[in-house]
Amino acid sequence: MSKIAKKEPLCEEIAGKGCSLKKVLDIIGGKWKIMILCVIDYNEVVRYGQLNRAVDGITNTMLANSLKELEADGLVERKQYDEMPVRVEYNLTPKAKSLIPILLELKKWGEENL
Amino acid sequence: MSKIAKKEPLCEEIAGKGCSLKKVLDIIGGKWKIMILCVIDYNEVVRYGQLNRAVDGITNTMLANSLKELEADGLVERKQYDEMPVRVEYNLTPKAKSLIPILLELKKWGEENL
Repeated sequence: MSKIAKKEPLCEEIAGKGCSLKKVLDIIGGKWKIMILCVIDYNEVVRYGQLNRAVDGITNTMLANSLKELEADGLVERKQYDEMPVRVEYNLTPKAKSLIPILLELKKWGEENL
Repeated sequence: MSKIAKKEPLCEEIAGKGCSLKKVLDIIGGKWKIMILCVIDYNEVVRYGQLNRAVDGITNTMLANSLKELEADGLVERKQYDEMPVRVEYNLTPKAKSLIPILLELKKWGEENL
């Protein structure tokens, strides 16, 4: 991995719209979305109410908006079961699951360096 | 890497102060700091004015504050040369350099998935 780092600079024009790193930060940036992905990853499948309790300090509006955006960006899947009361569950898509190992490396870096 | 992902959940209590992923996001969160790290990584050593021009849209206050925080967190090194006019240069610390490969993976994920 250090071989890649030496040969390839991180971003030639990070401010440019074409920068993939910027695109990633655009869809998972801010603290809520990563926290939401973490909670879903940990539980595999979660209900809306579970998320609301687990993500400390989040408002209903922020949670609902974040979930809608994560769904639109193909990271979270929403399943609605027509029971009474209606049950809504969320899980990670394969795309989001492929992101988890990289977030785990970030976490590991934090453990070793912070 | 997928082996790790299956065995180890991302965060048990992401909202908790002890979560290393949260600590990482706390020190590199927001769009400016990652952009600043990118520009320094690309150029190896940069002057303040160079950074100001390269990071599109950043204000003087935001750049100065971000650099101070990155320096305090041990990610960026500031060198002042007593010339006329005074020359100030910034480079990444070994700690920041060890973070770059992970950011490159995030970028690669973005290229493949977004």
